[in-house]
Order: sequence, then structure tokens, then C-alpha cells
Amino acid sequence: MTDPETIKALFFDVFGTLVDWRSGIARNVRRLLEPHGIAIDADAFADAWRGEYQHRHTLDRILPRFGLDALDEDTRVALNLAWHHLPAWPEVPAALRRLRARFRLAPVSNGNISLMADLARDNSFHWDAILGAEIARDYKPKPAVYLAAAEAFDLAPAQCLMVAAHSSDLAAAAALGLATAHVARPREHGPHGGETKPELAVDFAAADLAALATKLGC
Amino acid sequence: MTDPETIKALFFDVFGTLVDWRSGIARNVRRLLEPHGIAIDADAFADAWRGEYQHRHTLDRILPRFGLDALDEDTRVALNLAWHHLPAWPEVPAALRRLRARFRLAPVSNGNISLMADLARDNSFHWDAILGAEIARDYKPKPAVYLAAAEAFDLAPAQCLMVAAHSSDLAAAAALGLATAHVARPREHGPHGGETKPELAVDFAAADLAALATKLGC
Repeated sequence: MTDPETIKALFFDVFGTLVDWRSGIARNVRRLLEPHGIAIDADAFADAWRGEYQHRHTLDRILPRFGLDALDEDTRVALNLAWHHLPAWPEVPAALRRLRARFRLAPVSNGNISLMADLARDNSFHWDAILGAEIARDYKPKPAVYLAAAEAFDLAPAQCLMVAAHSSDLAAAAALGLATAHVARPREHGPHGGETKPELAVDFAAADLAALATKLGC
Repeated sequence: MTDPETIKALFFDVFGTLVDWRSGIARNVRRLLEPHGIAIDADAFADAWRGEYQHRHTLDRILPRFGLDALDEDTRVALNLAWHHLPAWPEVPAALRRLRARFRLAPVSNGNISLMADLARDNSFHWDAILGAEIARDYKPKPAVYLAAAEAFDLAPAQCLMVAAHSSDLAAAAALGLATAHVARPREHGPHGGETKPELAVDFAAADLAALATKLGC
């Protein structure tokens, strides 16, 4: 197991790990469609959108599956913005403040910089920088994303701890020499569950981000 | 003149505009060379380093000019790190807090992300993202740097205000359609002065960053 003293920076997956995308998107879908008198299965809609990429062209592609071919442009724009305003899991803001006292913190997400900046504003996350796909010009789990993040902080991969609720993300990071921390998010997918524990050997496994902060001595 | 209502994000030049690089570098040079019994003109050394790029290979090139060919590697590394720990001009931290209540804030500097993150930590700057040369993979005053910064925030150039103490930086930004704000830094170069007013037409000209915040209605 990695000694916490080795670690200088924490990298975070965001959707699912830090924010509850499913409830947030479903709530926004209901709010935006209600004035149109439309009722759909908003949870299933969130699942479908997340299943691909949370981009505008994905939205346009999934709308017909929910009988919403004719949805107007303004509502489509508003729906797309829902990804910019999602609630953090309850313990996250305070846990990030504890962690920031000792480590550099950055999101390493496939979401772009603008999206990350909005989520940070809404949830009072204080990042040292926004790293991830837009910096690397590639998407996780490609190696370039993790390596570009370490390089942006002038750190070796072993000095960086990837924090995620998804074993696939951690497996990609571990293969490059980053340390890994799994955070359980048993309700990420609502009734479909979420990872309660890692599917691979990790350096740290925690029930939530507050528990991880404690394990790291913060 | 641009209406402040149009502006959504402020981009900041950092060296000279937000931090006092000359005093900071000179102080660190004196502190690091004193244990070696070496006394040089630390202000001139800071000027020479800044005159080119503040990189490690520039340091290696200017050391001989100051009779320091034989300086050991550890001290060279420590000297280079001096750029990561420079004092903000006194009014800057509080002015940035006022501005952040209304605008997205990002450094758009030729310094890299790691350097920007350290300067932010030392001086309690809360950035929404770190933009600039490393994101754009080019250096100011190249157009790509300003345009990549606007794009990272999903904004049009006209929604972005470039804030700098250097007219050349503002001229490059204005040519691309960004709004411009000049902040006077009459002591940037010590006895050699600094820009007391812009050398081109700008949207806002202010005596310091607090005065700019007031002009922007913050």
C-alpha cells in the first residue's frame, strides 16, 4: 500500500464519484418538461444520456427514444445545461476542504473545463487546477489523460492518487503507476446500484470521501 | 466602452499584473546565495531572468553573467522554484474575491499550470480554472492563447476581459475581440518604473485591481 506521505496530488473522477448525476439530471428533466405537459421516465432518461457521452449531440439522439422528437431548441439547450448544475454527494464539499489542506486537488474528468468550473461553483469545490480530458485532448481511460494530469502538476505518476467510484477508471490509472483510491457509491445508479467496493486491488478503499480523508490523515 | 454586463470572465496576466516578481525573485536570490557567501546585484539578476523566459534553462544561461558558473545544482533548483512563490501586490487578494462574486476568473499567463497553482496557494487566489499557455500549447501574445481561454469557458471573445499591466498583452487581446483592462503597476521594474497608463485605447483603465473591481460594479 502506498504511504500517504508519497502522495502530493489527488485527482478526482467527478460524475458519480463527487456528484450525483442521476438524481440531478432526472430532477432537471422533470422541471424542464413539466411546463410542456410532458411526463417521461426521467431516471431512465438520465441513464440513457449518461450511457453514452453527456454531450448535446447525444441528447439529440436519445430524445426520439422517449417520444420527444419535436422538443424545441430552447428546451434542448436548457436540458444540456443540466450537466453543469448537479448536486455533490452530501459529504463531498467538507471532505474536499479537509483534503486541500494537505494535497493539491484537481478533477480529472471527461467533462470539459467549463462544465467543471460550473460544478465547482455550485458545490463550493476549490480546485488547484482543472485537469482531465480537455487538457490532454483525449478521453479517459486513455493513458494520455492521467499522464497529462501528473505532468501539469510537475509530478511523477506515483505522487498522484486517482480517486474514483469506478474500478475501470482506477485500473487505467494503476497501469500507469498512479496510486488509487476507491470511494463506494452504492446509489450512483439508483435501483441499479453502484460499486460498493473495488473490483481490483487499490491503495485505499473508503465508504465515502470523508472516510478517505481520514485514511489519508487529513 | 464595453458594458460590464457583457463580461462573463476575467483573464489575468500574472507576472507584474498580480504578483511583484522583481522584489520576490531578488529577495529569494539574496536568501539562497547568502549561505554561500555570494553577494550579487539581485535586482539586476531578477531583471535579466525576467527579460527572457523564467525557465530553468534561462537561469543556467544567465548565471555566468553574474560570475556564478560554479553554482551547485541544489541551489539552481531552489532558485528556479523562487518563481513559484512570489508575493501578490497588496490589494490583489481582496480585489479578486470581490471580482469572483460576479465573474469567472482565470490566469492567462505564459507560466505553466504548476507554477500558477503554487502562486494561487501562496496568495489565496481562487481561480475557476487555470488557462493560458499550457492549455493553448503556445505563448502570449499569440492569438491561440487568448482564443483557447475563451473557448475553454464556452465564451465568445467579447465576453472575456483581459486584465494586464502591459499594453502589448492588451493589444494582442483587443485584436481578437476581447475586452481590455489596464492596471497601472508603476513599480513593476523598480527604479525602471512600469506602465502608469495604457499605451492604447482600452475598455477600462485603473490605478490598481481594487479600482478596477469598483469600475466593474463589484
